[in-house]
Parts: sequence; structure tokens; C-alpha cells
Amino acid sequence: MVRPQPQLLHPMFLHPLLRAHPDVWAEVSSALRKKNYESNDRVISHGDAAGNLWLVLSGWLKLTRQTPDGKESIIGLCREGDILGEAALFPNASYPYTAEVVGGSAELVAVPATILRDLVAQDSSLSVHIMALLNERTSQAQLKLEQMTTMSAAQRLGCFLLQLCNTQANRTKTLQIPVEKHVLASYLGMKPETLSRSQQQLKSYGVSVAGHNLLIQDIEALQKFVCDSCSESGNCAAETAS
Amino acid sequence: MVRPQPQLLHPMFLHPLLRAHPDVWAEVSSALRKKNYESNDRVISHGDAAGNLWLVLSGWLKLTRQTPDGKESIIGLCREGDILGEAALFPNASYPYTAEVVGGSAELVAVPATILRDLVAQDSSLSVHIMALLNERTSQAQLKLEQMTTMSAAQRLGCFLLQLCNTQANRTKTLQIPVEKHVLASYLGMKPETLSRSQQQLKSYGVSVAGHNLLIQDIEALQKFVCDSCSESGNCAAETAS
Repeated sequence: MVRPQPQLLHPMFLHPLLRAHPDVWAEVSSALRKKNYESNDRVISHGDAAGNLWLVLSGWLKLTRQTPDGKESIIGLCREGDILGEAALFPNASYPYTAEVVGGSAELVAVPATILRDLVAQDSSLSVHIMALLNERTSQAQLKLEQMTTMSAAQRLGCFLLQLCNTQANRTKTLQIPVEKHVLASYLGMKPETLSRSQQQLKSYGVSVAGHNLLIQDIEALQKFVCDSCSESGNCAAETAS
Repeated sequence: MVRPQPQLLHPMFLHPLLRAHPDVWAEVSSALRKKNYESNDRVISHGDAAGNLWLVLSGWLKLTRQTPDGKESIIGLCREGDILGEAALFPNASYPYTAEVVGGSAELVAVPATILRDLVAQDSSLSVHIMALLNERTSQAQLKLEQMTTMSAAQRLGCFLLQLCNTQANRTKTLQIPVEKHVLASYLGMKPETLSRSQQQLKSYGVSVAGHNLLIQDIEALQKFVCDSCSESGNCAAETAS
């Protein structure tokens, strides 16, 4: 009987990056650290030396940057299964954003940069996986840029909701988005009042909002409204959600 | 006397990705193909199998995508030293954009996907270099997204010009941007008339435009106008240009 290595049963191995390469990570599992955070805790700070790669096991984080003239921009929202701090792949790099927990507690795994770089140098399947993650991140950012000009605000909100529905097999879906309105608006590149108007507009496509909860009554109707204005149409995971 | 391998003298080895790993690429140099293109030639098509990675030796290319409802979005502009078609890193991937030559002729090198993937699997320094390129591309796209909300249109145009000044050691700089106005406007996420207004506005910071030529009379003045509204301020190559 083949017995799984006990360390692989640790919940951190549920993260996709660890789950996909169990043998590679098992050897260094004692160096990985699971950490718990509360809402508003800061995990990394923009400009600090990138000492760890971070894997999100649960919770939400906002990634922000500050301009010298005092504006804060939300450059990302991270959730379960995401990675952050990929600057740790490169020697002497610093984090290009601040990451703070939002809307409740969060669990993350810290992978020390030196260990990460050794593993990537030794294991080409891991390095290809990480390249694919980086490439996916570029594609997402480019798609968001495209959508700033090809989509209305309501369509951009709809696209975000469809991405959250991604793993869902039903026609109806309830989403919890534990993120303050101004944070979500900034992430979607719109003003909070535009977000409110967009939520109103999505009602006709079966989306209803109650606080941080959203009910999507007809995923296909929402797709029809959103995806015709997107160049990824026909090639996007969110379209196979229904 | 150490004699350089003759194939390393080929102009394609001036491209940064080849120049940084001469021994790795020398072994496969006979499989690399230099190709010449004229304006409006299409190098790759959105959705086609990603058979090659492309290295730009000279010229300009626009990267575009089309939405089902007929909008074209310019998701990138590539120039000398850039790479495109990085989907070729991954088996069974397709190109996520169309690339067409703009504003004159262009020279590119085609690196067959199978050869690229073999090299990346064998050589960890090459894979780390490619990860750094992908990471840089993500950062650029995220920065552009940020700038859509933190910067005015004139500042975004100014930032683009400063990036083109990057390699320049003088206070004054003449730039050639052989790209049609509507293409540049779309790339910068603005309407052509907004681009015209932004060019007017930059006159007070010493930027004058004559057709495809731009004269920047005072890089520092332009930096002062642009960089205070950017979270990369103090950490950006374009700021060390003067």
C-alpha cells in the first residue's frame, strides 16, 4: 500500500501551486509557514524586500499602490488559490504593491524566496507552471485594460461577477463579495456612484444585491450582456460557468 | 585567443534575450529564422496555434484584439528588443492577439515553440530570464491600469514619451513614433481628439509635435509633470533618463 507522505495532508497542500507538484514541495514542507490574518492586517508592503512568495488558502486581499501626490490605486484583488509577491522569484527584488486583508480573516502560506528560487532552478515543471501563472496574470491585466475601452461599467462589473461564478455548475449563483464598495469600484476602474448605477443596470439581467451578497439568477443572460463586447469571447472560463 | 562562435555575430544576437544567453542559443541557431516584413504585414493572428516566439529586431508592431460586436482594441505596441507570442512557451496554446507591422518595415526572429520549450526546460537561467520578462509585462499592464485612474490623459501620453526616452542620456530628445494617431490614442486608452488635446497640453512642458516626430526639450520638466501621479515614482527607468 502506498501511503501519502503525512506532510502532504496539511491543508496548505490544497493550494493549486502545491497540489500540482506534491513531491517537489514535500521536500521543503518544513520551511513553508502557514499564517493567519485578520481583516485590515497588512501582509506585505510596497517597496519591502520580497522575502516570500505568498499563497492564498482563504480570504480576500486587496493589492494597492500609493502615488506621491496621495492617490491610492487598487491594482488587484486576491482570493483563495491566488499567489502574490511573485517578485520573490528574482534576487534583490522588492514587492511592487502593498497587500492587506479585507472583509474577514485570511490564511496564507509563506514560501521563502531562497527556497522558491532553488526549486524553480531545479524543477522545470514547476518553472513552467509559474510561467503559466505569470502569463495568465498578464493576460488578465491586458484584458482589463481592453475592457476599459470596449465595455461599459455595467459590463465590467458583470464580467467580474461571471469570473467569480467560474467554478459554479448551476444556472443560479449566490456570491459573497466581502469588499467595501469604494474598493471594488476602484478595482473595476470606476467611481463608487458608477458602481451603484451599474448594479442597478444589472438588475434587468437578473443580478440582485443585498449588502455584500449578490444573487445571480440567470448566468446565461448575464453572459449574453457581457461577453459580446469581449475579445476573449468563446475562449474564457467564465463562459463555461453556466 | 578566444574566437566568438561565428553564428553569434549574426544581427539576431543583438536581441536582449539572445544576447543574454549566447551559449544556450548558439546550439540551436540554425533553427532560428530571421524574417523581414513591410508595413501592414500580419505576423501572427489571434487564435492561431502559437508555433513560434517572436523577437523584434527592428520596427514597430501593434497588438490587437477584436470583440464579437466589432470593436478593435490595441492591447500593445512592440518595438526593438521586445518579444511577442509568449504563448509559445506552453503546449497547445494559441496566440491571444493579432500582431501587425505599423509605420514601416520590421525585422523579427522566429523561435520555434518546441525548441523554446526544450531550452527553457534545460536551462534555468533562461527560464528565470523569461519569468522576469513576463513579470515585467504584468507590471507594465498593471501600471497602465493604475494610470487610467490616477493620471490625466496628458500625463499618460507624457509617461509613454518618457518610456521612449529611456535609453537617452541628454536633456533634449527627438522621438520618431511611426504609429497612426488613432492607434496611439487607442493604445493609451483615449479618443483621438483627447490625444490632440493632450499634445497641446504638453507644449507647456516643452513637447512639440511635427507629424510622427516629437521633440522633447526638457525631459526633467516632463518628468515633474508626469511622475508625481505614479506609484512607480522613484523606482522607474524612465526617471533616470535625464
